[in-house]
Amino acid sequence: MPLDRTACDELDRSADRLDGFDALRARFAPGAPGALYFDANSIGPMPHDAPERMRRVLDEGWRLARRRGWNDFDWLEQPRSLGAAIAPVLGAGPDDVLVADSTSVNLYKLLRTALAARAPRKVIVVERDVFPSNRYVAEGIAQAGMATLRLIDRPDDLAAALAPGDVAVVSLSHVDYRSSERLDMSVLSAQIRAGGALSLWDLSHSVGAVAIHLQADGADLATGCGYKYLSGGPGAPSFIYLNPRLRETVNSRLRETAWPALCGWMGHADTFAFEPGYRPAPDVSQFQVGTPPVLANAAFSAAAEIWRDVDAAALTARHRSLTDTLIALLDEHCEGFGLHLASSRDHARRGGHVALRFEGAAALAQALVAAGVVLSARKPDSLRFGVHPLTTTHGDLHEAVQRLQTVLQTAAWREPRFAGASV
Amino acid sequence: MPLDRTACDELDRSADRLDGFDALRARFAPGAPGALYFDANSIGPMPHDAPERMRRVLDEGWRLARRRGWNDFDWLEQPRSLGAAIAPVLGAGPDDVLVADSTSVNLYKLLRTALAARAPRKVIVVERDVFPSNRYVAEGIAQAGMATLRLIDRPDDLAAALAPGDVAVVSLSHVDYRSSERLDMSVLSAQIRAGGALSLWDLSHSVGAVAIHLQADGADLATGCGYKYLSGGPGAPSFIYLNPRLRETVNSRLRETAWPALCGWMGHADTFAFEPGYRPAPDVSQFQVGTPPVLANAAFSAAAEIWRDVDAAALTARHRSLTDTLIALLDEHCEGFGLHLASSRDHARRGGHVALRFEGAAALAQALVAAGVVLSARKPDSLRFGVHPLTTTHGDLHEAVQRLQTVLQTAAWREPRFAGASV
Repeated sequence: MPLDRTACDELDRSADRLDGFDALRARFAPGAPGALYFDANSIGPMPHDAPERMRRVLDEGWRLARRRGWNDFDWLEQPRSLGAAIAPVLGAGPDDVLVADSTSVNLYKLLRTALAARAPRKVIVVERDVFPSNRYVAEGIAQAGMATLRLIDRPDDLAAALAPGDVAVVSLSHVDYRSSERLDMSVLSAQIRAGGALSLWDLSHSVGAVAIHLQADGADLATGCGYKYLSGGPGAPSFIYLNPRLRETVNSRLRETAWPALCGWMGHADTFAFEPGYRPAPDVSQFQVGTPPVLANAAFSAAAEIWRDVDAAALTARHRSLTDTLIALLDEHCEGFGLHLASSRDHARRGGHVALRFEGAAALAQALVAAGVVLSARKPDSLRFGVHPLTTTHGDLHEAVQRLQTVLQTAAWREPRFAGASV
Repeated sequence: MPLDRTACDELDRSADRLDGFDALRARFAPGAPGALYFDANSIGPMPHDAPERMRRVLDEGWRLARRRGWNDFDWLEQPRSLGAAIAPVLGAGPDDVLVADSTSVNLYKLLRTALAARAPRKVIVVERDVFPSNRYVAEGIAQAGMATLRLIDRPDDLAAALAPGDVAVVSLSHVDYRSSERLDMSVLSAQIRAGGALSLWDLSHSVGAVAIHLQADGADLATGCGYKYLSGGPGAPSFIYLNPRLRETVNSRLRETAWPALCGWMGHADTFAFEPGYRPAPDVSQFQVGTPPVLANAAFSAAAEIWRDVDAAALTARHRSLTDTLIALLDEHCEGFGLHLASSRDHARRGGHVALRFEGAAALAQALVAAGVVLSARKPDSLRFGVHPLTTTHGDLHEAVQRLQTVLQTAAWREPRFAGASV
């Protein structure tokens, strides 16, 4: 049966009714009329009440309360309360997640924590073609003499990388930022632990798109962006996860022999005692450093309230339905134009976006943006449809693929221009 | 002549007309009716158009543009453009200041940079009773084996601390967060440089209150809060300064032998080339790490526009007039209540706030807040009037001291209650 518009709309009607996604979608603000957004892998959609929450923190907090905001509002608790709100879609306990700083800064903290916990092991294993910042952070630690870098080309190389018994931590991107390939967290975390190392997962391209099972899958450390599928707002702070197993065992060693890499007053065991000496908080709060970003956290709180109401299993089912449909539509309507599916056809092996390989992906992305299909390209040839399970509909997918087909049938856009920076 | 209300109002009229402070004050939003704010040392006043700037970035950026915001707006340039806007009141060149991350994280970056630049020297000198986070950050680096800590009680101890010739960096708070004592940046920077070390200045309690002369005074490295007198918004990002002398000389050594402590994609020499290997940006941009906090930066941009129009010398003159008046009013109206001036009577030796010592400062602060005088206390006995030179008037000071006198004349508030957290 062809996937026509009627069939896609019917998928929306039945799924929405069953799983309450119509109610969740209504909690997000609509974008520009006629625009279809497939860039949740860059910046996720804005919750309806983010502006009102921001208006309140500006007016009641900054303008009127000023310093009293620290006492009268939840500003100090937000790093933990935002973490608790997103914990269910991470498969984490509510006390094991903190929202603070950027993903790159959090990668630094976690790599250093792993090195301290696994000393005298000094090797960091990192993927050669991972998102650049993930590699840079590890390179910086190695360049300072605190670690040795071991690059792997693919997870299959992990056994060989672990074999010498000197690996402290394996830093993996759960989902590849180009192809969207999703790694098997459970299998790899077990393999890494068996090799005597800690696993560190960057969840930027999966969190908020599909359910993650950090604790059940035995992940040790994790971080990821707050501004992508999590919809925390442009440049939102990142989150950081510490497996409670580490808190209870390895962390006692950390307290005796090593501290967090970045020791600041907000990560102190008793911040407002103003003790002259540093004592790390015994849990994930030790990863706090400076004063929390109150305004950014207020924006993030709008999405956090939504995540509290999301059923993790339904999220994954919805995302699977959407991305399977997208792939079927691409198969049906876009054959013969030189587009190749770069992502797996198996949903369990895909992250948030569906990636296509296309020579001239950047120019095609520009043409699609001009046609109201907001997506992104990555060098050299990756075209990415970032599908947000809480706001994208099957009907949107049908319309987007129609527009893609129309663009492909014209030739005007085929000048090689780089689409520019996208984050 | 007694400083009555009329005299204070006359000071406002003449000074405002001369220096344009009435126009600058009008660019800030008023606080609660009847409230007098002396907490710019915690959270500075909100510029009038901060909410409109935030509304626009939420609506036009997050809701409508989504990932296109990176191309269509100034999101990527903001860390540098915000830095350039505040550079004049720092006495820094426009290319030497960056706005990013928190003050504690920036202290970490700068201490590590200094250690790399001055290797094999390994000693960090830090004040024993400095704001806790400044000490914690240094302690953390020492605990990881990258440095040795040498605590000093007062700047007079600096000569002895530098004498062994092993000091890499001296980390000083320009202004004490309790007493408001301001150090002589020029004399101490020269002394530190003569001792073969780099000077690192935390300007949190002076920047935006009085003009700072980083380059003329020979400071090497600096950072400070964006949310205090700078009025960047609650939890606003911090700024970071690298003396161009270091960029040109020591930095060449840094490029060869050491990288920034936190290597992230935004500090790469060519972020969007997505090179597999890290190469630090050759200037202050190397201190960028992760994705910039777009919403927080939008709030900060409101104040940045104001700072562009502030004459640094007039700022200092205005702040001197205000705080000299406050001290004179306290002398005149509050004698015999057990209040003692903790700050210097010499403006050149004071920072943004005027501090009083008072047994039961926290309870008195609470009583004053209840009387509409919003200020703060710090353990054990410090009562702080944070005077913002762009919004406080001499008339406000008169009214505040009247209310203080009234509170002191009653006894009801004299229960020892801790005023709670204040940041």
